[in-house]
Amino acid sequence: MSGQKLWAVVAGVGPGTGACVARRFAKSYSIALLARNPANYEELVKEINSSGGKAIGISTDCSDANAVKAAFEQIKKEDGFDGNLAAAVYNVGGQFVRKPFMDLTEDEFSIGWKANGLGGFHFSRAVLPLLLETEKAGPQHPPTLVFTSATAAMRGGAMFASFATGKFAMRALSQSLAREFGPKGIHVVHAIIDGVIDIPRTKEWKFDAPDAKISPEAIAESYWHLHTQPRTSFTYEFDIRPYCEKW
Amino acid sequence: MSGQKLWAVVAGVGPGTGACVARRFAKSYSIALLARNPANYEELVKEINSSGGKAIGISTDCSDANAVKAAFEQIKKEDGFDGNLAAAVYNVGGQFVRKPFMDLTEDEFSIGWKANGLGGFHFSRAVLPLLLETEKAGPQHPPTLVFTSATAAMRGGAMFASFATGKFAMRALSQSLAREFGPKGIHVVHAIIDGVIDIPRTKEWKFDAPDAKISPEAIAESYWHLHTQPRTSFTYEFDIRPYCEKW
Amino acid sequence: MSGQKLWAVVAGVGPGTGACVARRFAKSYSIALLARNPANYEELVKEINSSGGKAIGISTDCSDANAVKAAFEQIKKEDGFDGNLAAAVYNVGGQFVRKPFMDLTEDEFSIGWKANGLGGFHFSRAVLPLLLETEKAGPQHPPTLVFTSATAAMRGGAMFASFATGKFAMRALSQSLAREFGPKGIHVVHAIIDGVIDIPRTKEWKFDAPDAKISPEAIAESYWHLHTQPRTSFTYEFDIRPYCEKW
Amino acid sequence: MSGQKLWAVVAGVGPGTGACVARRFAKSYSIALLARNPANYEELVKEINSSGGKAIGISTDCSDANAVKAAFEQIKKEDGFDGNLAAAVYNVGGQFVRKPFMDLTEDEFSIGWKANGLGGFHFSRAVLPLLLETEKAGPQHPPTLVFTSATAAMRGGAMFASFATGKFAMRALSQSLAREFGPKGIHVVHAIIDGVIDIPRTKEWKFDAPDAKISPEAIAESYWHLHTQPRTSFTYEFDIRPYCEKW
Repeated sequence: MSGQKLWAVVAGVGPGTGACVARRFAKSYSIALLARNPANYEELVKEINSSGGKAIGISTDCSDANAVKAAFEQIKKEDGFDGNLAAAVYNVGGQFVRKPFMDLTEDEFSIGWKANGLGGFHFSRAVLPLLLETEKAGPQHPPTLVFTSATAAMRGGAMFASFATGKFAMRALSQSLAREFGPKGIHVVHAIIDGVIDIPRTKEWKFDAPDAKISPEAIAESYWHLHTQPRTSFTYEFDIRPYCEKW
Repeated sequence: MSGQKLWAVVAGVGPGTGACVARRFAKSYSIALLARNPANYEELVKEINSSGGKAIGISTDCSDANAVKAAFEQIKKEDGFDGNLAAAVYNVGGQFVRKPFMDLTEDEFSIGWKANGLGGFHFSRAVLPLLLETEKAGPQHPPTLVFTSATAAMRGGAMFASFATGKFAMRALSQSLAREFGPKGIHVVHAIIDGVIDIPRTKEWKFDAPDAKISPEAIAESYWHLHTQPRTSFTYEFDIRPYCEKW
Repeated sequence: MSGQKLWAVVAGVGPGTGACVARRFAKSYSIALLARNPANYEELVKEINSSGGKAIGISTDCSDANAVKAAFEQIKKEDGFDGNLAAAVYNVGGQFVRKPFMDLTEDEFSIGWKANGLGGFHFSRAVLPLLLETEKAGPQHPPTLVFTSATAAMRGGAMFASFATGKFAMRALSQSLAREFGPKGIHVVHAIIDGVIDIPRTKEWKFDAPDAKISPEAIAESYWHLHTQPRTSFTYEFDIRPYCEKW
Repeated sequence: MSGQKLWAVVAGVGPGTGACVARRFAKSYSIALLARNPANYEELVKEINSSGGKAIGISTDCSDANAVKAAFEQIKKEDGFDGNLAAAVYNVGGQFVRKPFMDLTEDEFSIGWKANGLGGFHFSRAVLPLLLETEKAGPQHPPTLVFTSATAAMRGGAMFASFATGKFAMRALSQSLAREFGPKGIHVVHAIIDGVIDIPRTKEWKFDAPDAKISPEAIAESYWHLHTQPRTSFTYEFDIRPYCEKW
């Protein structure tokens, strides 16, 4: 890894968590951004590249094995990439379906699973061999895989069958990977982000408290902190909530 | 429901929990047995019919929407069935895949989800309208939907990514249904069965204690007990473990 | 145990769960009722004795080691008691303190612990040797120790510091005993009763649903069912909630 | 708070977590160290004071209301202290009792509660008014109260009745405070430290992996990170485990 920057991959980039995580990790790593819609990463790629960092964007549907494969083939061909992946953040949430159970179609019900379970599977299979390779090279921080999750990973609410089955599955996947790859030095984290995130789309959403929305920059700082934990001292599961959120 | 017996449906019938639950509920209800392989219910159907009960068997793959639909079309045509479903037990476990994560194919990883998540979805969509109809008629016991689950619904172990994502999803589904349909008088239960069940296939499995295997008859008694709870006093989640099992 | 009836002990007897559990277990066992205030058991003792059962009442503060010791000395001297304890139910809740944290005195804060933690300790130490002795004699049902708990055992709410610390401690105690004494054949159960119980004192409490209160008779039936589970198939933790309760 | 440094209090200071947390917070705050045995903080006080920080030590038994009161009276008289408490860490573990349940005395059983429940109560009552006062002054980071806990807060193991009841109670207390004081801007954290900590006393403990022990410096970094989270984005519960620890 002679002098080359390490890389980080962020899947699921919108204006909130994904973008802020990318900006934060771009301070130390080259960044590959995956999103289905290029509009979600194009501006961010420019921003990072024009401010001294390095970023690429790849249009990818993470629930599609071939799409994920193709995306990582492209990453591997990048100048400066030779398997040196320092961190991977799976931030794909999927469309949020909230409906009476009897109104759900099979496709709607499966959205949660596809985005959070199956997509997490394809992403993990792509990044884990790279993270393991990086681990052997003795990186400054243990290679890290973070799953952005939600309270719905812990509680299946009425009308939430699609989202909750997906997030429960994501938590199962994260735990299973943490227990298999933790002993190999890979840091796998399940992060429950519980609340409305402060992004342009939620600007108009009013709450009693003026600062009731989660700061995506703060999420990014916490993800970075977790990434810097030595392997003697891994956090596997944690939550982030606004001070005024009921939980 | 003039004088007609109520019905119960048990999906996932092998020689263990499914068969014992069917026998137990057959004391009070006509029974429809669903399993992919007719060999799994044929003898049991005969046994119940020849001992004063009533049972039918239908070959069904519960992860297939059309198969489940067809199965319930057949049930609805049964003599004596006019929507009067008292209880439904989803006992489909799916093939148990235990493998290093990087060796899992997409199909293998998805087995847990298909059996426990998607299959539970199709089954629930078929039985809930019938259970709600029964509820209106003021049955002796609240209409009941039980999911047979496992410790893997609470803990994602290494090598268990397929099974655990499926069982986590099943728990999410069960909670979501309990919270939506509980207030409508339907009793939805998530039952963690934690341990080896005492069936012919496990006869040779030896443990330190001679009675270390769960009795499927005891599971059936507990399911029946839960079915008899009045709606003022529903149990939503419970576990069954052998006395000598670590947990 | 030649022909003698087995005994059950119920600590914490008021007009609700405790009384109903005592009545239910009195169908099979002689009953010892413990409560601080004799007014809480006197009528029930008469009722059980006059309807073909056998019951005694002993005024006991379970958080006081000597009081519990004295109570069991008295039980052991009872005609027909020779260590043959089949079941023990710890149903002491303690005074419910709901206050802003800064208004709590040390005594108020400690109420939850004393009733649920320390009282459970003294009670368990008194009953476990008797339950173990019964176990050796090969009783029909595994000797059973049930703790009546609450949702506050799983969630520490604002203003609930006293109650929640007590109920969390009760759950820890119950799990610790289940894991130590389960392998010895003793069935230890933690029962979360989540909701308002239907007793004279709550008669005037109105809810949207007319049947929104938990039936103490139903709780008693579930406790009895758990007691009858064979040791191959123990339930260690379960919940009871009204169908219309949010959870 | 004109130009004065803010303060942090750390209760429970030995050679591990407490000392490292104190050192870390001493980079930004004046530090008050509480421990029963002055030998536990004397050297550390000297070390911090001689390296540009400010520290005092006070011999305190946190389970004793009057001792805690006296300690905070002393802190309040410190030059530079005018109620400006930025952070408080409750790191008292108490003696660890591991015994068959029937061998526990009442005093032994109560050790866990006294250290973790009652001590946490007294400490919280002393620090919360100060943290609230600091909050009003608009500090850089939200005033923070961290409880150092253990896996025994989530699981009551055999032989662990004393320790587990204490740690369960600590978690209940932490949740209750987080839910009452979170909306007031105070950050209350329950930190599960799961594993052997790398301190002189555990130097000889050998594991398969050479780095199987948790780094107390890493714990301190994580505590500091949590302290810096803005109130839009509080972590309430998290865990720290060595990469090779089973969980």
